[in-house]
Amino acid sequence: MKLVRYGQPGQERPGLIDNDGGLRDLSGEIADVTGSTLDPATLARLSALDPASLPVVEGKPRIGPCVGGVGKLIGIGLNYSDHAAESGMEVPGEPIVFMKATSAISGPYDDVELPAGADKVDWEVELAFVIGTRAKNVSKADALSHVAGYLIVNDVSERAWQAERQGQWTKGKSHDTFAPMGPWMVTADEIPDPHDLGMRLDVSGTRRQDGSTRTLIFGIDHLVSYLSTFMTLEPGDVVTTGTPPGVGLGMKPQLYLKEGDVMRLEIDGLGVQQQTCVRGGTS
Amino acid sequence: MKLVRYGQPGQERPGLIDNDGGLRDLSGEIADVTGSTLDPATLARLSALDPASLPVVEGKPRIGPCVGGVGKLIGIGLNYSDHAAESGMEVPGEPIVFMKATSAISGPYDDVELPAGADKVDWEVELAFVIGTRAKNVSKADALSHVAGYLIVNDVSERAWQAERQGQWTKGKSHDTFAPMGPWMVTADEIPDPHDLGMRLDVSGTRRQDGSTRTLIFGIDHLVSYLSTFMTLEPGDVVTTGTPPGVGLGMKPQLYLKEGDVMRLEIDGLGVQQQTCVRGGTS
Repeated sequence: MKLVRYGQPGQERPGLIDNDGGLRDLSGEIADVTGSTLDPATLARLSALDPASLPVVEGKPRIGPCVGGVGKLIGIGLNYSDHAAESGMEVPGEPIVFMKATSAISGPYDDVELPAGADKVDWEVELAFVIGTRAKNVSKADALSHVAGYLIVNDVSERAWQAERQGQWTKGKSHDTFAPMGPWMVTADEIPDPHDLGMRLDVSGTRRQDGSTRTLIFGIDHLVSYLSTFMTLEPGDVVTTGTPPGVGLGMKPQLYLKEGDVMRLEIDGLGVQQQTCVRGGTS
Repeated sequence: MKLVRYGQPGQERPGLIDNDGGLRDLSGEIADVTGSTLDPATLARLSALDPASLPVVEGKPRIGPCVGGVGKLIGIGLNYSDHAAESGMEVPGEPIVFMKATSAISGPYDDVELPAGADKVDWEVELAFVIGTRAKNVSKADALSHVAGYLIVNDVSERAWQAERQGQWTKGKSHDTFAPMGPWMVTADEIPDPHDLGMRLDVSGTRRQDGSTRTLIFGIDHLVSYLSTFMTLEPGDVVTTGTPPGVGLGMKPQLYLKEGDVMRLEIDGLGVQQQTCVRGGTS
């Protein structure tokens, strides 16, 4: 099942993608796609519906981030060994964990804002997962049962803000529009092996990232279990799991996003995102 | 005006403290104390009420965190020069910014959980502020107009997780109950100078921190303006501004919290918090 949210920012309605790729309205079934509707019982109820019985959404509404009301947006750093190498960093002995501001979340086709004065904005195609049931100190064996589904996140990053402005990465990861999500959240039952998904990112038509979740250092089950020892993962929390090689930071010479650039991201089974870069103003 | 939230976790109701220190119910006026009710117009409407006309809350309900639905819980590191010195760190040239998980937020008198296996849990009394109106790229001169009010946060920290587990501080700052908030949010009009507030923290009756916001390196106006260039601050976001000297990490030998310890925190005009430390289980 592919769950989506559509409509203007802050006013998104829930929907699902039917077998023909059409958009159907779920407002009669759930209030929104959020932590409170990602529990196994609700997902089972929704998946038992006949999509053809749901109202067709007319026109071409904006597609919003596919999960609303995200409580925590957690990033994992340097989780592909070859990306660590291109970044000039060592492969970490345990996951590097950082937070992105939830205010950075945007829709999969929304413009990405290059902040005023920022000239090292970079791309990162990533597999992300959404928590469906509360996880605190869970074992690796039980971990995947807490995952409601998967989605693409573009972990947009300002490298100077991330690395040259007093250490903590949050500053470089949190600008508005730095976390396009979607287009869909695909429920976990439709992704039999999240550790074998091809992933690609093009910038203005040139392939920049071409990897696979096969080369993840720390897999989804490890991450859920690991994170759950430090903090409780709550329904609707999103964890984005790191990026394969091919980011602008790793190029020689380094290459960063400029106004008008178009990013196109794809992960097998999770659809396509596309964003145009625009220059941000001062307010 | 002192705004509070009372009731069981997740079911808190809004209230205010009347002129005699009594608790009055605000449920008839606002749904909750959250970003959507901290705008200047709503605060003005509430402050025009006669507290004596509001229902008295009977009994001794639990006091919850004084702000609900917090979108971002942002911490500032090493923001007192003498605390930087005791931590063996240099005074930063610009604010150090990190995130605490919003799931760490707890009530001002709730127990603080020492996580299973963690033996370097430390205290930090801090002045925090709550955003009342959206702030993006705001000037220092305009910054304080975006602040709805002030409160105490205990920025509880696990030092090994913060510093010895792959860099980013988030891991050591985010455990459940590591962000007691309150007891009240005091509206900004009642705190004429947030940069001149005495602050104290006792552990089991021994004074450990005794400082003043006079020695903040980066003041509230600077922080609002600075943060707003990296990310949009939204109503209900909470920023906790750093701690003065006297944390366990800075003692020789270092001293950390143990089961049964009682932390008592006080900031002039912002009330008193008190938490008992309990050992967390494995789920």
